Amino acid sequence: MSDSAYSLIDGGVCAPKGFLGNAVTCGIKNPTATRLDLALIYSTEPCVSAGTFTTNRVQAACVKVSKEHLAQTCIRAIVANSGNANACTGTKGIEDAREECAQMAELLKLTPQEVAVCSTGVIGLPMPMMRIFPKFPELANGLAANKGHEVAQAVMTSDTKEKIIAIEFSIQGKPVRIGACCKGAGMINPCMATMLCFITTDAGLSKEVLELCVQSGVKESFNCITIDGDMSTNDTVLVLANGASGVVLESPEDIYTFQKALAYVMLELAKHIVQDGERVTKFVTVHVTGAATEEEARLAAEAVAKSSLVKSSWNGNDPNWGRIIHAVGYCGAPVEEEKIDIDIAGLSACRGGIQTDTPSDNLREAVQVPAFQIDINLNRGEYSHKVYTTDLSPEYVDFNRSEYAYWNQAKVDGLTH
Amino acid sequence: MSDSAYSLIDGGVCAPKGFLGNAVTCGIKNPTATRLDLALIYSTEPCVSAGTFTTNRVQAACVKVSKEHLAQTCIRAIVANSGNANACTGTKGIEDAREECAQMAELLKLTPQEVAVCSTGVIGLPMPMMRIFPKFPELANGLAANKGHEVAQAVMTSDTKEKIIAIEFSIQGKPVRIGACCKGAGMINPCMATMLCFITTDAGLSKEVLELCVQSGVKESFNCITIDGDMSTNDTVLVLANGASGVVLESPEDIYTFQKALAYVMLELAKHIVQDGERVTKFVTVHVTGAATEEEARLAAEAVAKSSLVKSSWNGNDPNWGRIIHAVGYCGAPVEEEKIDIDIAGLSACRGGIQTDTPSDNLREAVQVPAFQIDINLNRGEYSHKVYTTDLSPEYVDFNRSEYAYWNQAKVDGLTH
Repeated sequence: MSDSAYSLIDGGVCAPKGFLGNAVTCGIKNPTATRLDLALIYSTEPCVSAGTFTTNRVQAACVKVSKEHLAQTCIRAIVANSGNANACTGTKGIEDAREECAQMAELLKLTPQEVAVCSTGVIGLPMPMMRIFPKFPELANGLAANKGHEVAQAVMTSDTKEKIIAIEFSIQGKPVRIGACCKGAGMINPCMATMLCFITTDAGLSKEVLELCVQSGVKESFNCITIDGDMSTNDTVLVLANGASGVVLESPEDIYTFQKALAYVMLELAKHIVQDGERVTKFVTVHVTGAATEEEARLAAEAVAKSSLVKSSWNGNDPNWGRIIHAVGYCGAPVEEEKIDIDIAGLSACRGGIQTDTPSDNLREAVQVPAFQIDINLNRGEYSHKVYTTDLSPEYVDFNRSEYAYWNQAKVDGLTH
Repeated sequence: MSDSAYSLIDGGVCAPKGFLGNAVTCGIKNPTATRLDLALIYSTEPCVSAGTFTTNRVQAACVKVSKEHLAQTCIRAIVANSGNANACTGTKGIEDAREECAQMAELLKLTPQEVAVCSTGVIGLPMPMMRIFPKFPELANGLAANKGHEVAQAVMTSDTKEKIIAIEFSIQGKPVRIGACCKGAGMINPCMATMLCFITTDAGLSKEVLELCVQSGVKESFNCITIDGDMSTNDTVLVLANGASGVVLESPEDIYTFQKALAYVMLELAKHIVQDGERVTKFVTVHVTGAATEEEARLAAEAVAKSSLVKSSWNGNDPNWGRIIHAVGYCGAPVEEEKIDIDIAGLSACRGGIQTDTPSDNLREAVQVPAFQIDINLNRGEYSHKVYTTDLSPEYVDFNRSEYAYWNQAKVDGLTH
């Protein structure tokens, strides 16, 4: 199914039938700030749910609690905040996360296990619950079908743009919708790392099928992006499907149509995250082909996409294939120098490990654009892998030099020393 | 043996008896430049030699040729240049490297296999041999015992300081000397990556014992440093031992004394490389203890030392243990969050995965120094590992944005298009 089979619609996570949202201001990061920082997503119908979480061995309290709830039952409501990650907060953090689920469940007449919690922000400081809980009634009472944008805004940290998408497409001749929002950024707005993504759909399907679709979609989207190579303690993708469209997916053909649509939504959001990376100026697709194994393709693409030297050269409009091949060389796979071909922005730069006769001025001109692709053919087999990434700018480092202000606020809040 | 058992002496690679050096100006990078860029080290006596080379799958022509020569016989002369890496230069690059060995061997009355070649500089451009070969007679004829500094200067690229050391110590009551120089920097002065290290000694020992000492020394020194995580195509350590001191190492005790002294020289040079990293402001020792395996200790230490976020925070004097624990969490080893203790500059910052009551102002003050240590106890076993690293500065990225000027010169030289 081509992209044009999807109609882009407004509304984000509230676009699918039977999903409501709301967001309020708690001042989690800064008590005097007026920006939205606490969001709620709620399905008016029972749903099935699936999700993926960070593989970091250090996991936020909210990740631990939400994983547990997802394993026990189906999630019907998501409470999400920015400003504090509730990570490395010990038993207190777990208690805070559980209490959030319990209090919101009571307000929404759900069991605590039907509520998930997601946080993004600074690591290591307890959550200022004294500013969060008092806002819960307002958050639950204000749920509405037109607040998809507010939900997206409340989870933004160093994101400069709201990341929201919703599509409508047809299955069995009837309209089905998928809506979503996410937050990304660098990998932190000082340590505001974290990729959070919430997806809703009014398609009806079993939990098993939804899980399969989520796994395959994440593999081809969120797992293929890197900005600074750092993996958050809080990364979460949650998908809720409530069947409110009246379309039940049972035939392999219908399931495939839905799977493709979900993968499309995920890939679009993943690209949005990269494009809005902290202080980046380039969107670069690294495409490795001809690898002997899937692992080899991934290792080579990631080595290039994560190399500080390669990324610095992109920032300077330098079409530096020498740095690219040197990163391929140390990727850990048994690549063969004399077989490596590299194209930069469609121009042949290296064949068999040595320079081609493409004039260097042409290469230089080709990378003076906001987005381009690097094609690396290892000429060893049939496997390929694509990674979406960015340049590395002096401004990124400058932006991430200190988050000390958060500690000062936490001291005022009595949450640290 | 304590460090004080070593007397620091002048002379670098020429300090040990029977080693001569010289350096000349070829204009390899820039025909009008006047800086030294071609060096020669020569032993007046037959020697044994050992070395280690980059594990990058993409290896410079000089690395390929020098490895071959080292395997065939013992190296007695080293020709080294800066300004061009002779990497990714195909058959032409190999021919150039072989011709360098052959021509220098003729001048020094050696076999070509007794000569090693080392290069550092831009990747992907052929060597401007028309400016190198004419300087060979001057280079060979000017060999002298007082030119250790010139040799060190000729291999500098983005290094801001000459890196040279020589020590004298006693074995069997007689003086033995080890002399050395190296070049490091960021990982490139635009792609002038590469760590080159040349070590000479007048101790007498077998090739097998020298190889053992070199392997163990490199493991604890050059393999424990990271500046930007990029691994060069040209990294080389070469050690020549000519026995001119009259001291022959045969007893395990004497060999151990020499091994320790060689390791000391290597570690000092490795630290010099880190301290002179491109545009760095901090020298940081990351010490992981309590790991379940050697591999786990290494993974955890390297994840912290290579994290862009952690390194950016050090640049901003931010004692950010949250970023440190998040990097430990994604290192790939099965670390346990609730067991992790972190000390920053001697102050307790995290115990059992959560913050301690050390006042944050004290932590902040403790890192406002040019050098400090991070201690991470995983509390899972007995293994430990130390990595020496630096902060990441906006100036590093700015410095590495473009090496386009090199391509322009190569075009003038008729070596590229």
